Amino acid sequence: MMRLRQPAWRALAPTERTAILTEAAEWLAANPQTAVFSMLGHKADLMFIHYRPGFDGLNQAELALARLRLSDYLEPTTSYLSVVELGLYESTAKIYKELTEKGLSPHTPEWNAAMEETLDRQRKAMAVRLYPEFPPTKYVCFYPMDRRRGEAKNWYQVPFAERAHMMHDHGMIGRRYAGGVKQIISGSIGFDDWEWGVDLYADDPLVFKKLIYEMRFDPVSAMYALFGTFYVGLRVQTDDLASLLG
Amino acid sequence: MMRLRQPAWRALAPTERTAILTEAAEWLAANPQTAVFSMLGHKADLMFIHYRPGFDGLNQAELALARLRLSDYLEPTTSYLSVVELGLYESTAKIYKELTEKGLSPHTPEWNAAMEETLDRQRKAMAVRLYPEFPPTKYVCFYPMDRRRGEAKNWYQVPFAERAHMMHDHGMIGRRYAGGVKQIISGSIGFDDWEWGVDLYADDPLVFKKLIYEMRFDPVSAMYALFGTFYVGLRVQTDDLASLLG
Amino acid sequence: MMRLRQPAWRALAPTERTAILTEAAEWLAANPQTAVFSMLGHKADLMFIHYRPGFDGLNQAELALARLRLSDYLEPTTSYLSVVELGLYESTAKIYKELTEKGLSPHTPEWNAAMEETLDRQRKAMAVRLYPEFPPTKYVCFYPMDRRRGEAKNWYQVPFAERAHMMHDHGMIGRRYAGGVKQIISGSIGFDDWEWGVDLYADDPLVFKKLIYEMRFDPVSAMYALFGTFYVGLRVQTDDLASLLG
Amino acid sequence: MMRLRQPAWRALAPTERTAILTEAAEWLAANPQTAVFSMLGHKADLMFIHYRPGFDGLNQAELALARLRLSDYLEPTTSYLSVVELGLYESTAKIYKELTEKGLSPHTPEWNAAMEETLDRQRKAMAVRLYPEFPPTKYVCFYPMDRRRGEAKNWYQVPFAERAHMMHDHGMIGRRYAGGVKQIISGSIGFDDWEWGVDLYADDPLVFKKLIYEMRFDPVSAMYALFGTFYVGLRVQTDDLASLLG
Amino acid sequence: MMRLRQPAWRALAPTERTAILTEAAEWLAANPQTAVFSMLGHKADLMFIHYRPGFDGLNQAELALARLRLSDYLEPTTSYLSVVELGLYESTAKIYKELTEKGLSPHTPEWNAAMEETLDRQRKAMAVRLYPEFPPTKYVCFYPMDRRRGEAKNWYQVPFAERAHMMHDHGMIGRRYAGGVKQIISGSIGFDDWEWGVDLYADDPLVFKKLIYEMRFDPVSAMYALFGTFYVGLRVQTDDLASLLG
Repeated sequence: MMRLRQPAWRALAPTERTAILTEAAEWLAANPQTAVFSMLGHKADLMFIHYRPGFDGLNQAELALARLRLSDYLEPTTSYLSVVELGLYESTAKIYKELTEKGLSPHTPEWNAAMEETLDRQRKAMAVRLYPEFPPTKYVCFYPMDRRRGEAKNWYQVPFAERAHMMHDHGMIGRRYAGGVKQIISGSIGFDDWEWGVDLYADDPLVFKKLIYEMRFDPVSAMYALFGTFYVGLRVQTDDLASLLG
Repeated sequence: MMRLRQPAWRALAPTERTAILTEAAEWLAANPQTAVFSMLGHKADLMFIHYRPGFDGLNQAELALARLRLSDYLEPTTSYLSVVELGLYESTAKIYKELTEKGLSPHTPEWNAAMEETLDRQRKAMAVRLYPEFPPTKYVCFYPMDRRRGEAKNWYQVPFAERAHMMHDHGMIGRRYAGGVKQIISGSIGFDDWEWGVDLYADDPLVFKKLIYEMRFDPVSAMYALFGTFYVGLRVQTDDLASLLG
Repeated sequence: MMRLRQPAWRALAPTERTAILTEAAEWLAANPQTAVFSMLGHKADLMFIHYRPGFDGLNQAELALARLRLSDYLEPTTSYLSVVELGLYESTAKIYKELTEKGLSPHTPEWNAAMEETLDRQRKAMAVRLYPEFPPTKYVCFYPMDRRRGEAKNWYQVPFAERAHMMHDHGMIGRRYAGGVKQIISGSIGFDDWEWGVDLYADDPLVFKKLIYEMRFDPVSAMYALFGTFYVGLRVQTDDLASLLG
Repeated sequence: MMRLRQPAWRALAPTERTAILTEAAEWLAANPQTAVFSMLGHKADLMFIHYRPGFDGLNQAELALARLRLSDYLEPTTSYLSVVELGLYESTAKIYKELTEKGLSPHTPEWNAAMEETLDRQRKAMAVRLYPEFPPTKYVCFYPMDRRRGEAKNWYQVPFAERAHMMHDHGMIGRRYAGGVKQIISGSIGFDDWEWGVDLYADDPLVFKKLIYEMRFDPVSAMYALFGTFYVGLRVQTDDLASLLG
Repeated sequence: MMRLRQPAWRALAPTERTAILTEAAEWLAANPQTAVFSMLGHKADLMFIHYRPGFDGLNQAELALARLRLSDYLEPTTSYLSVVELGLYESTAKIYKELTEKGLSPHTPEWNAAMEETLDRQRKAMAVRLYPEFPPTKYVCFYPMDRRRGEAKNWYQVPFAERAHMMHDHGMIGRRYAGGVKQIISGSIGFDDWEWGVDLYADDPLVFKKLIYEMRFDPVSAMYALFGTFYVGLRVQTDDLASLLG
């Protein structure tokens, strides 16, 4: 997320600004896995979302962006690092059951091999969800979240079956909203300061509120979800960057 | 919310300042759904409240404001993004009862259609409250708030009927103050870092304190309300902007 | 609270500094309800306390201060907005008893009129305390505080009689220190981020510590008081401003 | 605590830097109750500790330091204000016992006079500890701390005898480390944002960790101690200031 | 951790930049116990990790880095100070048992001498782990952590045997990941704001997430671990510094 240094930007000669915007637009056109958003409120003026297959690519994207002349007029306000992941509670439960029925024990080489092979098959089948493209919607909402690790209520001490059950019911709500909002869930344990990051894309931003409000009452969210900062923005197509900042 | 860069502003030639203020005043006159307030304390010098029918309009208002030359002398300190909403506990309870009596089940297409039709009728009837104008009062108070999601006391785990009952009693206090203070409640779940934003307008600022102090003892606030930062300011009519900053 | 921009201030020619300080001293001499303090530590260099009969006056004071040329060399670090109030637990209990004995019910027009008339009489009788002047002491201590609204211990759920009893005992400690320290309690519910602000004035700053340490053990503080940031400073008489900053 | 503005400092001509450092060294030589430390990490580059007999002296030290030309190249990052105090649990218990045996009641004039007279005698006897000098050790560690005021565990609701007992056992650990580390405990209730400040001085910095780790398990710390930010630095003798910053 | 002042850095003439980078590369080549990382996200552009045998060496490293001309273009964002330590729960339990069987009592001179002698022997045997070198992996993850000191769940009130048991199980998870990730645990009680710092090194950054996610369910982490900010970066070999910043 970036704030635009308005006074310095505005002090530039129009030809200079045009040259800088052209350079930025060319980079964006060449990098369709990076999208730009015009943010509402003071938290940022622009948000760049980079979808890349690995951290090396993310680092390259970040460095390339920093080398654009536009970056001299942007200052980073925040960022979030995470990896798109699939909600695997149901499939994990299935694999565990299968492997146990085959007589395998967790953490043995056979178990690990069978587990890795199954997950690998799933990852290939779901590559479209693991390596997402930007939906053509107008609005984005991003927020990070944690599972509660309280003294009395602690997600990480809830038995697997109970967690799987709650996640199933939680997923049902999401599914009812699938027509109006696209969700991309990413995991950030070990990468950033919250455990998950959520990207929501919709054409009607009120759907963000309806979805999250309804979810707030389902047990997994009511008892175990902690939310970070919410960011809402409008997609800026590469061709519109110049008119936004021009 | 904006802080004025005093030294840079004061360093301007008077004619320059006048030109900048004239441009700002013209924009404000053309946008009566934006109001300006002179804030008390260090949190901001000026607060701009933009009431707009959608997020697209808010984004436009924000960008237009940023393009005013005055913005070169303002730096954003904070902001809040929310949607005006009606307290629907009572009407929701009524609709649920009606639809259930008609034999409909929640989330069926019939239920959803009947629900949407009723809510739509209500929204039209209450359009004045959903698309508010600025009251002519001298003082404003803004603060965000959450319902508590604690380990022991958790609003989102309280049964609907109990929440509706507490909200009814809470609303009664507000109604007793209706003559002295106008409240605009907006929802920000999914939009900003607290769940609701509250705008209070009054001619006597002591009423803000009396109202909120009295509410603090009613159960829904005592047990379940968490409050963010409070902001208090005085309305600046467009004609008075020049004398405020001149 | 303000921090002095030392390098810019020091870079001024001595005659310039003198002119700026003269302007500031003249404003302070004309506004005896504003006092200046030289603060200990990094939180601020100068604290300005403005006692004014209303928020309009506070806003005027703030704007007038911002227009002094000295303000080009000051940057605000924090502020606190509150209204001086009287500890009314005992008198409120008395009035309730009287009105109830007269057969009045709360919130009826008769009750409200009788209540307002009694409070008005008290306010007049205690105008000296409601509209305080600065005591001639050398040291000041300011801190904001809240009553706890915890999940288990919640001041706003304690019955009135019990709160009144605890406040009485709490007041007794304050009274024993009355010779050494002057307390001005102000309320900020609806105005700022804590519920109360406390100004303490004394000639021996150790008394601040003794008083607050002793109070910390009395039940109302031990169980229900939450404290914000503490600020300690030395009074700067208008005549001494030039030698402080010269 | 101060951060050095490296680029501006380095941009100075060497003779200018030497002149500034000479002025600073002269002030430090004339004020042996102020010591300078080179801090580890980003929290500060330099820490100045001022031991003074009163707040007036602290204010003078702070102002004098701010007037040194070196201060144009330093920016304050934080500070802490407190008063050296003696751990009086044991002696207080003894005095209470004596006065009660003499038939005196707390807060009576006789009690207060006897109490004040005894404390005064103690203060004189322990003046060396109340008005400390800097030990000749190489390393310093500073941190502020609170006694917990939780909803369930609250130091200020523990009976005196139990607190005295826990403090006695706590002190025993400190005593075992007395050879390797010198502790100066100061109180800051009413003065700063934590209740106590702790200065530790040692020639082997690992002793800071051993001492605090061992204490963390004794009941008074395990249950009732909350810790703020830790700062570690190396003493800079006045003669070494020039080589540190030159 | 450092942020690069992009605009100022880019404004330099290429020969100037080259000279600055050559100076930095020479210092890094001469100090192989300092490594540089290119960080992901806004928290920092560069992270410098300094492994040194003592705090004096760390202070020297910090000062030497600050004197490089490159530092005029870097601003510190954060830092962490800690001492590499060995997980001694198992060996401590063994020593206690041995010494007790020999009839020694804790804190007696004989006990202390025997304890110190055994620990000293261990430290020598494990010098390679106490004085680590940088592994040749591509990715680093750093985060600080605490053991929980809650009102209900408090690590420092858990009996030693139970803590040792939980730490043993916790270590087992780490051991299973030993092939894919190298962990360096350091203690910072008394040195910095969290109790431990964890450096993880791996060639596949997803391993950071898998390891920490799995650990999050084991009792010692689920109940007693609190995590600070996570930082992830890519190793920059000295020869690559110029191309990163050139």
